[in-house]
Amino acid sequence: MTMYQLLKQDGHARRGVFETPHGAVQTPVFMNVGTQAAIKGALSAEDLEQIGCQVELSNTYHLHVRPGDQLIRDMGGLHRFMTWNGPILTDSGGFQIFSLAELRHIKEEGVSFHSHVDGRKIFMGPEESMRIQSNLGSDIAMAFDECVKIPSPYEYVKDSCSRTFRWLERCKKALAAYNAQEDAVNPGQMLFGINQGAVFSDLRRDHMQRIAELDLPGYAIGGLAVGESHQEMYDTIELVEEYMPKDKPRYLMGVGTPGNIIEGVARGVDFFDCVMPARNGRHGHLFTWNGIINIKNEKYARDDSPIDPQCGCPVCRRYSRAYLRHLIKADEMLAMRLSVMHNLSFYNELMLRIRTALEGGTFQSFRREYTQKLDTRI
Amino acid sequence: MTMYQLLKQDGHARRGVFETPHGAVQTPVFMNVGTQAAIKGALSAEDLEQIGCQVELSNTYHLHVRPGDQLIRDMGGLHRFMTWNGPILTDSGGFQIFSLAELRHIKEEGVSFHSHVDGRKIFMGPEESMRIQSNLGSDIAMAFDECVKIPSPYEYVKDSCSRTFRWLERCKKALAAYNAQEDAVNPGQMLFGINQGAVFSDLRRDHMQRIAELDLPGYAIGGLAVGESHQEMYDTIELVEEYMPKDKPRYLMGVGTPGNIIEGVARGVDFFDCVMPARNGRHGHLFTWNGIINIKNEKYARDDSPIDPQCGCPVCRRYSRAYLRHLIKADEMLAMRLSVMHNLSFYNELMLRIRTALEGGTFQSFRREYTQKLDTRI
Repeated sequence: MTMYQLLKQDGHARRGVFETPHGAVQTPVFMNVGTQAAIKGALSAEDLEQIGCQVELSNTYHLHVRPGDQLIRDMGGLHRFMTWNGPILTDSGGFQIFSLAELRHIKEEGVSFHSHVDGRKIFMGPEESMRIQSNLGSDIAMAFDECVKIPSPYEYVKDSCSRTFRWLERCKKALAAYNAQEDAVNPGQMLFGINQGAVFSDLRRDHMQRIAELDLPGYAIGGLAVGESHQEMYDTIELVEEYMPKDKPRYLMGVGTPGNIIEGVARGVDFFDCVMPARNGRHGHLFTWNGIINIKNEKYARDDSPIDPQCGCPVCRRYSRAYLRHLIKADEMLAMRLSVMHNLSFYNELMLRIRTALEGGTFQSFRREYTQKLDTRI
Repeated sequence: MTMYQLLKQDGHARRGVFETPHGAVQTPVFMNVGTQAAIKGALSAEDLEQIGCQVELSNTYHLHVRPGDQLIRDMGGLHRFMTWNGPILTDSGGFQIFSLAELRHIKEEGVSFHSHVDGRKIFMGPEESMRIQSNLGSDIAMAFDECVKIPSPYEYVKDSCSRTFRWLERCKKALAAYNAQEDAVNPGQMLFGINQGAVFSDLRRDHMQRIAELDLPGYAIGGLAVGESHQEMYDTIELVEEYMPKDKPRYLMGVGTPGNIIEGVARGVDFFDCVMPARNGRHGHLFTWNGIINIKNEKYARDDSPIDPQCGCPVCRRYSRAYLRHLIKADEMLAMRLSVMHNLSFYNELMLRIRTALEGGTFQSFRREYTQKLDTRI
């Protein structure tokens, strides 16, 4: 049984729908990142509902450290805890362990490391990651993997890919067992495998072929957007995509700019996530359909128009550039909230326009018009 | 003509209604403080509408310094700038000049001081304060006064009161002139006088009698909640209230706890404002009808109930104590927003219950039940 239905194709680009225990996801989709069960910038679950969010993404590592996945399980799972009733995807924790945690030690069983919050020693392997994600009760659990740095030596990446594959087999087995328990928070929880291999073509291809054989509900391309060039990233997607099952959704982890997303869609990707819209928002860099504006610019001091006159988000419907600029200059928290809310709205609207273009057969002209423009600072 | 209508009395306590150019205010009322044209904690104008705010309070000094009152005038005034269409009261700047600004120098004309933001030299006297408030276009402009420290020497306070009276005459004349200009932002803008005199009974009384003769639309008691005891504050209100016009609203500036407000109402006060609900909210101290809880307390870690089961605010309708505690422990901005939103809702609801009690003749029993209880940490 597959949860993914391909509705239409344009070249490699796909318009589809993915069923989850908390509703259907129209793809391509951008997932809104709420690492610690909250969106940075004081956005609430109501706000998420208002800005067209389809999938919320939280983080296994962060929630395990604080407040603890057992606590969230006791509170009825992540959906209930944060009052978000749509689909949720949880990161496996792998990426954070390899980017945030200190003194980590990798072995076949898993990884020992020290918490970035209080320094306490934690061990996480495939079974632990699945147990935590089962406690959180997300709709999509990500496989526990090693996210290798780029560049890394070929031999290291090769060994890492083999281990990540063995970890994936263990993840699959562990999650099936957790789902079968009668008190499972979300017994329909699905596992996505993650392709690794840095920028080594043969490792990427071999790893993708091996994980595809496990017939998981979805597959991600991991280990990109970590230092390689955009061209290397696009080349890797093209290479890997050929070996990804056509009847499963594909998720490009941690990517990226609006232009990156359009190019990812063009190469057959269905799911995206990135902290960029929130981070840019916090610095006053706001996305518009004409490019990126810096709201702190003096020229907006008396500008009564909305951030983007083409945008129908709750921020653009009500507030002026002048007011937003004042808030950010005056260090008001509300500046963060309105900026992040606009940027996330923009990303969600971008995906809607991409889906509409795919349905109408106009995606290639959409791509020509916007890939460069949306990433340009104006 | 008076804008204030006294609807009902219970001892000194008054239930009334005050007409402003942006709508009627049901009194007693608590004004929600948005110093820099935004409520601390990322609350938006929509949020204010949702939590029963009647009057928003912004600050002349802060807005003059940043973004500048001329800019706000150019943007159509403060109501339009911040998209809040209800009544607005602006502080005169006096309190901030005497508490925030550096190197101030007081003379008959006004005060020279250095901005707390960029150190630039600013001069503000009665005419400047009225010009700024006229540019902001608030509904209620506060008189420019000197807020003396408690304790201060008798002779100093006496001279200061005389000067503050002369400043008030100049404020009245200046605001009338600004209102008469055909491009006035809010030609119906009203001036409230401010009583000073520290805790010296004769100075308080004499000053109140003199400013009452100016027949202004409203009167405030200033210079309290700056270090004196609660009893001294209550004694001063009782003393001054006798000389305040019965047909004008009375505003007790910068006060206070829920208990202080109930006691202020009992002594004939109609308007209140305080940063406490926002500040307490930011520290996790949340008001309930049983007293103040500290949401950071371990006992709330798995508490699925709302902050206050009796509260119908947007936060209590949706979020659990456990989630709020997690947010504050995890340093999520959303913690601030939800905490401040609840506390301001609580204050607005407190005023509603006070008004209802006054209408139903049950204010004294309300007072006995809640004055102590609401200020108690539980």
